[in-house]
Amino acid sequence: MEEKKQKETLVIEGRNAVLEAFRSGKPIDKLFVLDGCQDGPVRTIIREAKKQDVILNFVTRERLDQMSETKKHQGVIAHAAAYTYAEVEDMLQLAEKKGEEPFLILLDGIEDPHNLGAIIRTANLAGAHGVIIPKRRAVGLTAIVAKTSAGALNYTPVAKVTNLAKTMEELKEKGLWFVCADMGGESMYRLNLKGPIGLVIGNEGEGVSRLVKEKCDFIASIPMKGEIDSLNASVAAGVLAYEIVRQRLQ
Amino acid sequence: MEEKKQKETLVIEGRNAVLEAFRSGKPIDKLFVLDGCQDGPVRTIIREAKKQDVILNFVTRERLDQMSETKKHQGVIAHAAAYTYAEVEDMLQLAEKKGEEPFLILLDGIEDPHNLGAIIRTANLAGAHGVIIPKRRAVGLTAIVAKTSAGALNYTPVAKVTNLAKTMEELKEKGLWFVCADMGGESMYRLNLKGPIGLVIGNEGEGVSRLVKEKCDFIASIPMKGEIDSLNASVAAGVLAYEIVRQRLQ
Repeated sequence: MEEKKQKETLVIEGRNAVLEAFRSGKPIDKLFVLDGCQDGPVRTIIREAKKQDVILNFVTRERLDQMSETKKHQGVIAHAAAYTYAEVEDMLQLAEKKGEEPFLILLDGIEDPHNLGAIIRTANLAGAHGVIIPKRRAVGLTAIVAKTSAGALNYTPVAKVTNLAKTMEELKEKGLWFVCADMGGESMYRLNLKGPIGLVIGNEGEGVSRLVKEKCDFIASIPMKGEIDSLNASVAAGVLAYEIVRQRLQ
Repeated sequence: MEEKKQKETLVIEGRNAVLEAFRSGKPIDKLFVLDGCQDGPVRTIIREAKKQDVILNFVTRERLDQMSETKKHQGVIAHAAAYTYAEVEDMLQLAEKKGEEPFLILLDGIEDPHNLGAIIRTANLAGAHGVIIPKRRAVGLTAIVAKTSAGALNYTPVAKVTNLAKTMEELKEKGLWFVCADMGGESMYRLNLKGPIGLVIGNEGEGVSRLVKEKCDFIASIPMKGEIDSLNASVAAGVLAYEIVRQRLQ
């Protein structure tokens, strides 16, 4: 995924994602619309494009299908400047500006772009100040991530770091506590998850790596009643993030 | 999706899904393994197959890719009897057998098989007694659903009903309360979600339909702080299901 950082054009696909990109002020260079497509959402997108002097191209379905990375373009594809990664420092400043205790989500090797997109979406709605991903062995910010984030990528900063454990060390010096999701920990309902916190979610198959787990102050377990092993990674992230939200609301 | 009911062979793909199918006792007819693949998980699967007298075929990657519906077969594909739908009555009996208040998850038009799979997985772990889906305008039990359910489909019953609102009526007569996820409702933390309950999750784009919403006793809202509209459907289902778990544990 390293080459994504060099890529200067981001492909945004699907009606909601394109409309959200326009509304959030993302610099869009070109818009491709399925020729003859005239329904409400598409007309709204075309109006936005004209307002912002975006180059507008009406193309065939074959052409759109060819350009599409997600294969779910819904008749609209936009080319925008690539997403830029934020710095971890930006997230702490964002928390300070909002007068909130920092709440970060760290992903220890999420590989599925749908999971990364869904977690960025959750981070935005749960009020997290940012998502931190590692440079290696993890998916980066691709068009599928942008689409599944449902626009959240325009608002929630994502930082890419070389060494997740080292970043955690540095954040601990700034007062953050870390909790990771894993089996065999304390029930999340019994842990105190208030205060400046980093929530660590592990890889889809292998969970949290040893080095990262050693840096965690707590291991939180989601109570499990069933026959199988674990929740989907983005569902687990959502359940834990909202336990933090619940405790902060008290 | 209606034709899926007629299909008599189910394609199970990926190591976890195939292994879980063996372990749960699902009747597997044939196993296809990538020729030369010798690592631990694959050897375990082959051992299970031999133990159960399953027809074993070593095939090329091209052949596996051709057979694969998910394109993520990880070197193993099994053919099993198709998943059969349960009856709603079975779920109530399951709850009674376990001495628990019924907890059902109703999906009002989930279209994405990854969401359906993830929700069945969540239902299993949150201790729900079953998942109810409508016959029309919704995804049914496909290979992608089976794979993303991570084996949960072998344990958690799924029923398919003609009219979701009518099924809710019938369940109300048996003492169930219904709560649906939607904006503008009461915060889920302030609702009493104990007792026999049906959790209703709406369609990915349009939410809960009017007729189904009218049958709900409560509308529960997940607190949202960010700039975008809504969580991914399977994440929302997870967050709400675990709020029910939390209240039941008290």
